[in-house]
Amino acid sequence: MSAVRVTVWNEYIHEVEVPRIAEIYPEGIHGCIRDFLQEAGHTVQTATLRQPLHGLTDEVLDSTDVLIWWGHAAHDKVEDEVVERVWQRVVAGMGLIVLHSGHASKIFRRVCGTPTGYLRWREAGEQEILWVVEPSHPIAQGIDQKIIIPNEEMYGERFNIPAPDELVFLGWFEGGEVFRSGCCFHRGRGRVFYFQPGHETFPIYHQPEIQQVIKNAVLWTAPQGEINPGTEEGNFTPSPPIMPLRDRGYQAADEVHSKK
Amino acid sequence: MSAVRVTVWNEYIHEVEVPRIAEIYPEGIHGCIRDFLQEAGHTVQTATLRQPLHGLTDEVLDSTDVLIWWGHAAHDKVEDEVVERVWQRVVAGMGLIVLHSGHASKIFRRVCGTPTGYLRWREAGEQEILWVVEPSHPIAQGIDQKIIIPNEEMYGERFNIPAPDELVFLGWFEGGEVFRSGCCFHRGRGRVFYFQPGHETFPIYHQPEIQQVIKNAVLWTAPQGEINPGTEEGNFTPSPPIMPLRDRGYQAADEVHSKK
Amino acid sequence: MSAVRVTVWNEYIHEVEVPRIAEIYPEGIHGCIRDFLQEAGHTVQTATLRQPLHGLTDEVLDSTDVLIWWGHAAHDKVEDEVVERVWQRVVAGMGLIVLHSGHASKIFRRVCGTPTGYLRWREAGEQEILWVVEPSHPIAQGIDQKIIIPNEEMYGERFNIPAPDELVFLGWFEGGEVFRSGCCFHRGRGRVFYFQPGHETFPIYHQPEIQQVIKNAVLWTAPQGEINPGTEEGNFTPSPPIMPLRDRGYQAADEVHSKK
Amino acid sequence: MSAVRVTVWNEYIHEVEVPRIAEIYPEGIHGCIRDFLQEAGHTVQTATLRQPLHGLTDEVLDSTDVLIWWGHAAHDKVEDEVVERVWQRVVAGMGLIVLHSGHASKIFRRVCGTPTGYLRWREAGEQEILWVVEPSHPIAQGIDQKIIIPNEEMYGERFNIPAPDELVFLGWFEGGEVFRSGCCFHRGRGRVFYFQPGHETFPIYHQPEIQQVIKNAVLWTAPQGEINPGTEEGNFTPSPPIMPLRDRGYQAADEVHSKK
Repeated sequence: MSAVRVTVWNEYIHEVEVPRIAEIYPEGIHGCIRDFLQEAGHTVQTATLRQPLHGLTDEVLDSTDVLIWWGHAAHDKVEDEVVERVWQRVVAGMGLIVLHSGHASKIFRRVCGTPTGYLRWREAGEQEILWVVEPSHPIAQGIDQKIIIPNEEMYGERFNIPAPDELVFLGWFEGGEVFRSGCCFHRGRGRVFYFQPGHETFPIYHQPEIQQVIKNAVLWTAPQGEINPGTEEGNFTPSPPIMPLRDRGYQAADEVHSKK
Repeated sequence: MSAVRVTVWNEYIHEVEVPRIAEIYPEGIHGCIRDFLQEAGHTVQTATLRQPLHGLTDEVLDSTDVLIWWGHAAHDKVEDEVVERVWQRVVAGMGLIVLHSGHASKIFRRVCGTPTGYLRWREAGEQEILWVVEPSHPIAQGIDQKIIIPNEEMYGERFNIPAPDELVFLGWFEGGEVFRSGCCFHRGRGRVFYFQPGHETFPIYHQPEIQQVIKNAVLWTAPQGEINPGTEEGNFTPSPPIMPLRDRGYQAADEVHSKK
Repeated sequence: MSAVRVTVWNEYIHEVEVPRIAEIYPEGIHGCIRDFLQEAGHTVQTATLRQPLHGLTDEVLDSTDVLIWWGHAAHDKVEDEVVERVWQRVVAGMGLIVLHSGHASKIFRRVCGTPTGYLRWREAGEQEILWVVEPSHPIAQGIDQKIIIPNEEMYGERFNIPAPDELVFLGWFEGGEVFRSGCCFHRGRGRVFYFQPGHETFPIYHQPEIQQVIKNAVLWTAPQGEINPGTEEGNFTPSPPIMPLRDRGYQAADEVHSKK
Repeated sequence: MSAVRVTVWNEYIHEVEVPRIAEIYPEGIHGCIRDFLQEAGHTVQTATLRQPLHGLTDEVLDSTDVLIWWGHAAHDKVEDEVVERVWQRVVAGMGLIVLHSGHASKIFRRVCGTPTGYLRWREAGEQEILWVVEPSHPIAQGIDQKIIIPNEEMYGERFNIPAPDELVFLGWFEGGEVFRSGCCFHRGRGRVFYFQPGHETFPIYHQPEIQQVIKNAVLWTAPQGEINPGTEEGNFTPSPPIMPLRDRGYQAADEVHSKK
């Protein structure tokens, strides 16, 4: 395993405003995630909503291999320009891990192309059981069949995502619902993992198995090869033929300008 | 087969500005497509860029089961607000067929979540051979193994789309390139089909096999069940449990407002 | 909707040997399914294990568009030769619907390529809730979000299937498990649907929503185009080039016989 | 990168019988592949058709992480019992790389569940261009957009495989055909990669880019976690409930024996 440069982004509102949440995450959800990823040997920085550009400057993004995203109450406050730049870097190869209520974030909607905010939900502290559907998937390594989460907010189907490229976990909720809780997507050169657990009023990110999954996901979403802004396919100039063409006397319509 | 309400949208610039293109499509590409779909028994209207709201008013969209999209030189001229409303209707169940250079349109980028404008291209009038990869797919019915297109603009891989949910056609080009030329995607309740053939300087939409594929695609993308704006999952109110929950004395954090 | 020629295959052991099962299905599970499919306008025949060739003669298979399969206690008794012929017809385009404990049948293992018999199970009469994951899928039409099955045998993940091409239903079980309960696969020209509900000691196939799903599945798995034994790709003779080849003076190795 | 235990299986008929093929591969195709994999640091053994059990004894399989398969003229000579044991190990987690004419082998048909022998073919020494469809896939690392193979047997669509879980390469042939030349499948805990290049009369496995792809594929198909015969899901005994069940007074039918 090689060290990955991770940036943990957190909206960081609930922990500031609600004392009982601050007790669970005294340094914010991002602080908790930063700590266990650092312990695993990764290089971790954090960024939050209130910082200029939400802490996601060019400098920060350019030194990020994997971005972790937690948001909930203020998705609309995230600037479109920042979302655009994050998306540009994802399709160029940066990994993206979207956690829990980040399902309704602008960046997740952007990579999915669907209204991902739609799902059933209920905040009743009920038990969740997270089942491994693909035991050989890298993100499931070290997890023995299932993870029991004593208290969690319920998220239930239908979850309005495109069918994931790989489905790793399914969630069971005490009240009768199921959820596609661990979903992999590929977008451009980047890998995206959505992981449902993590309601702010429960100490879910302190649970070792949940940390294990996130650590696995960091390795899985880390870029394959270099992060590449993607102009290598040469989009503004035509590509010469590799094989000889028969001469058909064809003239491209010079009148047709501003190609693609 | 039942009649489908189709709207054919065309940028309609090349046919107006370039005489030799006007000769091929005197009533525009949209006019040609309208004609063969009407002949097939469908109810067809057209819309173009220059109309107010690009012809895609609420009234028009509300009476559209399948929207066909051809654009090339003016993708940036399409208003974001119109794109947003088209997207809303696609995820609610309207079918979307994106043709040829529509690969770089805002609506296709939106449903794909990737920079779909990236690909190799060359305008040399070379021959394309379109191979059927899935002969039992509804969109391939009536096509015997392959379609030969005598002259076509080359589009080559890598095409920066998410892996399609179903890959129906692969294109071969004389100069040495290949392309995923017929791709199905599911987004929300809607079906999306991308079909590569159709450069404006060649009479490709007059070719019977190409018309056959588009007619098949209209049937395949037509809504399954009613078009539903999608709030049925009740996103702003919690869902009551279906099964009894154990009482854990949990109180939701009332302080956490503005849920999802 | 056009009538489909359906053959319902049932092992037909439990209903003969166990009185309380016979009470639920006096004419066998196949009789129950036959009845509601006939009522829906289809042409239905049945076949069972004890018949010569298990009732699946060439004549029967040749007049079958969709085969429904229920088996449990005697998968090993099904002749390999019959399995081979069923498989040949599936890949040629016949639909296949595998029900409940048919998950461990030879034919399902054959089309999946995995040991599909592996899963968790428990026969405790607990409640199942079947959730629609893809509300716009043809097989989910007419189902409003979920189906509640008052008593069902539990089947739980990990279910050892290849990732389905389309996942339509997820099952929730009272005891804490989840299951991919409605799965679509494409094999050759044929469509395969696995549907988990239907333990023999409960009247599940009498439940209207379950019948609705099976009726939908008959329409979805029905052949697209003609059933074709599949030699059209000309496998024993080389294909002439479509485009002229450069002469390289190459001679195929005549010494290499018995091509493919 | 850690060393992988690879076994290269080769039918080893053409190299023995045809002098000009022996010149290209004096130690057999398996010898050539063994050499470049050893050089890459892997532990490599070989096995061939004529050995007892085709060289695939329990001892050999038990010490194999990734099995590479090349066969052509004698697929029928491979014992079903050996195929069964190879398949058992693949679904338990062993990687499988199937090369070129191995497309029609018993083991590939077994994991695919389709008549994979069907495709178009022609032995004319024409040029192939292999395009990278997914540049960020681990198997494509180090390959810059395309590989040109000066002379290759043509394999063309339709190739009768299930839609691959990941499509990495597409092949272009001079005579007008295209082919899904690099395909990933997941079966049980095992990963399978099919790679089309490698006709015996051309020195294709001596080409550095082709070796690069095979080296990448060894790493990608190597087991994730331990190879596990798969009984962990406890298939012959029922699973106790994780959550308490309501008592419904249900008695399982003791008369129904020999469960699953």
